[in-house]
Order: sequence, then C-alpha cells, then structure tokens
Amino acid sequence: MDASGHVSARHPHDPNRYLMSQSRSPQLVDASDIMEFTLDNEPVGGSDRPLYHERFIHGAIYKARPEIKAVVHAHSEDVLPFTITKVPLRPVIGSASAIGHHVPLWDIRDRFGDRTNLLVSNGDHGADLARCLGENSVVLLRGHGFAAARDSLIGVVRMSIFLPRNARVLMNAMRLGGDVNALSPGEIDVKTKALAGDAAGLARGWEYWAVRAGCADRLARTRAKTGESRRKEQSRSR
Amino acid sequence: MDASGHVSARHPHDPNRYLMSQSRSPQLVDASDIMEFTLDNEPVGGSDRPLYHERFIHGAIYKARPEIKAVVHAHSEDVLPFTITKVPLRPVIGSASAIGHHVPLWDIRDRFGDRTNLLVSNGDHGADLARCLGENSVVLLRGHGFAAARDSLIGVVRMSIFLPRNARVLMNAMRLGGDVNALSPGEIDVKTKALAGDAAGLARGWEYWAVRAGCADRLARTRAKTGESRRKEQSRSR
Amino acid sequence: MDASGHVSARHPHDPNRYLMSQSRSPQLVDASDIMEFTLDNEPVGGSDRPLYHERFIHGAIYKARPEIKAVVHAHSEDVLPFTITKVPLRPVIGSASAIGHHVPLWDIRDRFGDRTNLLVSNGDHGADLARCLGENSVVLLRGHGFAAARDSLIGVVRMSIFLPRNARVLMNAMRLGGDVNALSPGEIDVKTKALAGDAAGLARGWEYWAVRAGCADRLARTRAKTGESRRKEQSRSR
Amino acid sequence: MDASGHVSARHPHDPNRYLMSQSRSPQLVDASDIMEFTLDNEPVGGSDRPLYHERFIHGAIYKARPEIKAVVHAHSEDVLPFTITKVPLRPVIGSASAIGHHVPLWDIRDRFGDRTNLLVSNGDHGADLARCLGENSVVLLRGHGFAAARDSLIGVVRMSIFLPRNARVLMNAMRLGGDVNALSPGEIDVKTKALAGDAAGLARGWEYWAVRAGCADRLARTRAKTGESRRKEQSRSR
Repeated sequence: MDASGHVSARHPHDPNRYLMSQSRSPQLVDASDIMEFTLDNEPVGGSDRPLYHERFIHGAIYKARPEIKAVVHAHSEDVLPFTITKVPLRPVIGSASAIGHHVPLWDIRDRFGDRTNLLVSNGDHGADLARCLGENSVVLLRGHGFAAARDSLIGVVRMSIFLPRNARVLMNAMRLGGDVNALSPGEIDVKTKALAGDAAGLARGWEYWAVRAGCADRLARTRAKTGESRRKEQSRSR
Repeated sequence: MDASGHVSARHPHDPNRYLMSQSRSPQLVDASDIMEFTLDNEPVGGSDRPLYHERFIHGAIYKARPEIKAVVHAHSEDVLPFTITKVPLRPVIGSASAIGHHVPLWDIRDRFGDRTNLLVSNGDHGADLARCLGENSVVLLRGHGFAAARDSLIGVVRMSIFLPRNARVLMNAMRLGGDVNALSPGEIDVKTKALAGDAAGLARGWEYWAVRAGCADRLARTRAKTGESRRKEQSRSR
Repeated sequence: MDASGHVSARHPHDPNRYLMSQSRSPQLVDASDIMEFTLDNEPVGGSDRPLYHERFIHGAIYKARPEIKAVVHAHSEDVLPFTITKVPLRPVIGSASAIGHHVPLWDIRDRFGDRTNLLVSNGDHGADLARCLGENSVVLLRGHGFAAARDSLIGVVRMSIFLPRNARVLMNAMRLGGDVNALSPGEIDVKTKALAGDAAGLARGWEYWAVRAGCADRLARTRAKTGESRRKEQSRSR
Repeated sequence: MDASGHVSARHPHDPNRYLMSQSRSPQLVDASDIMEFTLDNEPVGGSDRPLYHERFIHGAIYKARPEIKAVVHAHSEDVLPFTITKVPLRPVIGSASAIGHHVPLWDIRDRFGDRTNLLVSNGDHGADLARCLGENSVVLLRGHGFAAARDSLIGVVRMSIFLPRNARVLMNAMRLGGDVNALSPGEIDVKTKALAGDAAGLARGWEYWAVRAGCADRLARTRAKTGESRRKEQSRSR
C-alpha cells in the first residue's frame, strides 16, 4: 500500500462492528491505532482521533455482504490504467484467481455528477459503490484505485499483492500482441478453493512478507497456531 | 527528486524575496543551506556559495505570479516522454488534479534558437518560461523536465510525486488502447479545493514521506501545530 | 525468487535422490532446512516438516533427465506474459543463451482439463511437464511461471536472473517495432559452452549476488576452492 | 553497473598505459584492486590476479583514440533493446547530449561469424569494435551492451547513468506515438561543452551519487580541490 490505503476487518464477535486504524499511513500503524466502528462508520464511543475519509467504503461493504470479513482500499498504480479505459481486468495468473469472474468499474460521476472530489466520502457514495461491487470480490474506482472484499484478512492482503501483479502481467501480455490466454471460469473457481485451504503456502507467504515488512517477530506467535493445521494438511496431500 | 532538482518558497514576510538552498543535491539539503534571493535571483547580501544554475526559473515565476508561494523544478523521468512528443499531459487520477486544466510545453529553441544548452540559465529564459506557464500550475520543458508553481510548499511536494505518477498511469492506459477517461474540468476544479482543505490527509501523507525520507523526527514538531486544525476538520465531516 | 519459488540439486552421491529445502520462503532458507527426497518426491525417512506442494516438478525432471543436476521453479513476473500469449521466448542477449533453442509452453489444461488449480501437485502433472520440457532447458507453465533444468546449481541460479532479464529486453525490443535480432543457433551453442568454462566470470557474479543477498561471508570459503581453477584459466587466455 | 561491467582510465602520466581493476564486481572494487595495463591489455609486470575477459575493449579504444581518457563497458538493460533492433538510439534529453550525433551498432557476427561467444575476448575483436566506434562517444554491442569513451572519468560515469535514462525516455516517447522531438545537432554540440565546464553541477552530481553509493567520505577530499574552481565559475555567471 502507499500512503493512502486502508484495510479493515469485521469484528470477530459482533458483525455490526468493524476494526480499522485511525487515519495513519499504513506502514506506521500499530496495535494502539486500531479503533472500532459501527457499520455507519462512526467510531464506537466517539473519538478525537483522525479518521480515514473513505471509511464509508468499509461500512457499506460490510452491510451489503454479511459473509465478508475484511475489506481493503488502495490506489495501486498498476491497477489505475484499467480504471480509466474499457479494457476488462481479468485474472490471467493463478495467484490472482481470487479476483474472480468479473471486476466491475465504479465511476462516481454516473450517479453523483461532475463536481465531486472522487472520494467515497459519505454513506451514499459507499452504498453506491457496494451496489456496483455486487457479489464480486473487486471493484475498480475510476481514476482512483480499487476496493476488495474477502472472507479473511489474509485474503485481502493477498489481493493487494496479486491484483497489481496480475494487472502488470496482463498489460505486458497485451502489448506482445495476439490473444491473451486468461484463466478459465473453471480455473477461477477451483483455484480459489485450493488457495483457501493452503495453510502451508499461506504460512510461507506470511513469512516472506513479514520479513520484508520488518515484523517477523510477530509471525513467530502465529506459526505456533498454524503448526497443527499444517501437520493435518500434509498427511492429506500424501 | 534526483540530483538535479530544486524547490523554493516565497519569503513568508517579503514577497520580493524567496528562499532556496545553495546548490546541493536535494536529499542532502539541511537548514544551514537555505539562502535568501531577490526576484532577480541574486543572493541577498552576496555570497560565495554555489548557486543553482536554473534559479532563474524561480524568480521569474514569483515575479509573474504574485499568488504563488512555492516553485519546484525537477527532471522526473516519467514526465520526460511528454516533453518530446505532442501528446498532452492531462490529469487522469484524482490525486493529480492539481496539474490543472492545461499543461503547456516550453521549448527553449522557439525563442532562443538552436545553440542553447537547454538550461534556464538567465533572466530572459526565465521570463519566457514564466510567460509560457501563464496562469497554469505546470509547464513542461522540452527534453528537460518540468516546473510547477503552487500556493504552498506542500502543494509543490505533492506535485513532484503525483505528476510523475499521473504520467505513468496515462502512458500505460494509452497502451491498453481505446479512449482514456480523464478527469473532467469540474473534477479538476473541485478536487483541487478538496485537497487544499484536507489537513488530515496531508498530515498522513507527510508522515509517510517523512519516514521514507528518514526525517520523521522533524515531523513531530509539525504534528503539534496541525493537531488543532485536525480536530476542527473532523467535526465538520461528521 | 519471490515467496513461491524453489530450487533443488540432485544428490551428489546418489542419482536417485535430490536435495531441497522444506517449505520456506527462499530468502529465509538455511542449511538446517535442507531435506533429502526420492525421485517420487517423498522425504527420505519420512518427515513432519511442510513440503513444497510443487516438489513434483523436481522429481519428474530428475527421472526424465539423468544429466540434470539442478532444477528451479519460479513465478518471475517478467516471464509470465510469455506464458499467456503465443509469442515465443527466444534468447536475445548473450547472458541468456542458456535458455537454449526452444522454450516449450506447458498448459495443464491440455491433459488435465479445466478444473485444476494450475499447480503441479502430483506425479502425473510432474511427468506431463517433464515430457513437455523434453531435452530443453526451460519450460513455461501457463499463467504460472517457469521451470529450468541445468547441469549445475550455478546454472539454475543464472537462469533465474537472466531468463527474466531476457524477457524484459525482448518485450521492450518488440515494442520498438521491426524485426528483433535474436541470438543465432550457433551463438546459442557456443555461448553456452563459453559460460560453462568461465570460472572467473562466474566467481565475479557470485561475489556480486552474495553481497546483494547478504551472505558474502559464505562466499569466502568458496573462493579458496575456485582460486586454483582461476589461475589455470588465466594462463589459457593469454 | 551490474555484475559484469568495467571502467578504466588512461594512465595520467603515460598514454601507453591504462588503469583498471582486477576482475571484481564493480560495487566491490577498492583501491587495492587497481592494476596497470599496456594498450595490448597485458598487466604491467605480469600478474596472477583474475582479469576482465573483455579488457580488450579498453586497450583498443585507447590505441585508436589518443584524446580518450576513460572507457566504460556495461550491460545496462535499458540500452539492450536498441542493440537488437534497427531503431537508432539518439539523445532526446539534455543530460544525455554527450551520447553525441551518432551511436553505431557493432555486431560481432559481421566479421567473426556465427560461432563466437559474443564477448570482445581478444585484440582482433577489440580493434574491430574500435573501428566501429570511430570518432563517436558510444558504440552498442548487439545483444550485449555498450561501450563509451570520454575525455574524463566523470564523463563515462555520467554516460553510464544518462545513456540508459535516455533509452528509457526514448522508448516511452515512441510508444506515445507521433514524432519524437530529439536534441538538434546544435544542441548536442553546445550542451556537451556546457556540461564539461559545469563544475558546480558536476560536484552536486558527485555528492548525490557518492551518498547513494555509500562512499561520501571520499568525496570530502575531492570537494576541497573543486572549491577554488567553483568560486571562479560563480563570478562568471553573475
């Protein structure tokens, strides 16, 4: 993420709440920054702390999609060209199958006219964006970025990495000329299930990203918990 | 910025002066390097220190544009292709709306002929560049870079980041083929005002860039000052 | 390599075994992670440790190609566009001649249908991939990455660096328009032999990569061993 | 430079000698690595140390061009597309004017046939390359890289930075479509002279690159020497 993205998770015990940091650059967020919000994007108990202007993305998606557990919004540069052209952003690499079958494009101008500031800055914007997202996993925001909704925090972290990577590969493949051999609908469905059950692969990914992000110590605590599911998964594949 | 850019600010108390570093690589500049210049680009009180050859860009723009408070000149590589072709550089992403409605292209050859060294190295060059800039925020310098003029230091810092980003996104979008959906005139106007009033967002950006630049300690002092405007801004958005 | 690649070496004393790390992100692997596998990809003596899902790539290639001493599998982004288009990936730069005369493309869908998860996750997938690789050095995996097989560990490390570099140069050359002047068959053959005998050049490369990877101390031990072959090689070239 | 480039300087006191490191990755070279060579590329006094295979580039150019004081050879990736197509590499940005009016392309196959290993690995190759370079500053080596010859060490260092940058800008400009507005012959001539006399600008560049390369301490000694020429140059521009 750059300086302007944010990620949230639905409260593990209360589906009418979600957790997100106060407004801070994502690389600087730590545990003390996390706040609790209602699905109308109000800080529970009120607060003086600065809030993300576009928190309305999160509440609207949690309201519209009861199964969603995490939401991310980012301005990833490699995705932006697909937000200002008519070329569909389809998954072409296996690691990005979670993009799903369709990626809708939301243009704030369609419903809110020509004099907005492009930001999802109130509940109406959020609701309209969630309508556009529908049952999909990713929605593009014209000239702005994307929002993704998954059933796990790991899922939205993966999306933040593999959606831009998929975009880069697709752009480069299109420039080579000729047809592009994208993932088939069957592959999108099956791959998604496979990744969801891949504890060892996910652990390996977390290990890599935690070292790169400089917080590998926090990962040790997670590894103990995944050790048991890892042993179970190993016997199944033999 | 690379090794060859420079930024200045109009003197907060005297509109006929501006402040800029002596000639040093921008990443190395510290407080002791700052000097005071007349709008004819002479160091006030004279000096032995090395001066930026292209300081003439700054004085000329401050003379021509009384409302301008800061000027930046950089050679950002991603902008350069637009300086040597006829493709207009228009804002396509929300964060780059400050680019404005029009980005003129200045070619030193037009007025000064074929045997210049491309540098804005005297008052005549500077005045011609400022004429080309007109009332716009950005002017491209053919085969060279760009200059931007804003009403705040933060504004030119943002421009240095988002102008190249916008250039990259536009280049990639054009390669996808088909029309590019650029910001509308209404969006350019409204977005600009929104960003100017966005203290929380700007503070978050400063936090991110200060950490990346390795000077986060200096930011602590700034945060105390912005705390009050942040609380005011928060109640307005609720 | 990114978080998802893996490299192996045939056991120096037993051609029916190969050595590879347990499932870990490649940058974190150390000596204690190395395990021994049969050519059916089973850990010798059994193990609780997590294994790479796609270890089947390695066993299959070692079975099919007795002369192969090392195998690498990686998802290098710059190679991926060639896995989803019909443009052949040919060597165009001298340093990538080891790519060889032909790079086949393996599509798991051809033999295993539309509902796979794209991973080489069992012995049948591995055998089919090895058939596709044939006598070549590199095989592309559609929407996934590549696998390379060489007669030395240094060979597959070089391939991991120069195959993506070759891909980038080829993509950029194609965009300039006109024909691309690729390596000739004669140059591919001769260059390959030259690099294999180039101890000084390989040592210089190892030195550079070891410093970049932060393990230069381990290289000192290797340098003593190569010192003698280096002196022999020097007198030949004078 | 990557792991495979090298730079040399003609001996300050003997035009029949040049100075270059033993074969080491360029980032690791220090003072103790420097050796003295004849223009036939033999180490003066003989040596056991490993030598760059392609030292023949250097001796040949020093022989052919008495005014040349430094030579660099590198494999810069961004330049490589121009070595395998027919698109001329012309200077389009002011900082790269030292590229000159013409950049010839040397293809070892023309004179030495189809079974070479592409390396300039003997005196005949070197002489043929120097003939191709002629009176120019840069020669491309097909599928391999470039060699540049300047009248100062700073000159070849600048070339190593600005030749690839120029290549990137030119590639991106060509993709925007339409004509590219390159430097005019007059601008190439004048800019070159301007840069050569620009002590302050060069010092600023050295400062930036020395900090990035982690050897800023060595620069302090150089700054004392340039202080005097800087004061002289400043009075001329006022």
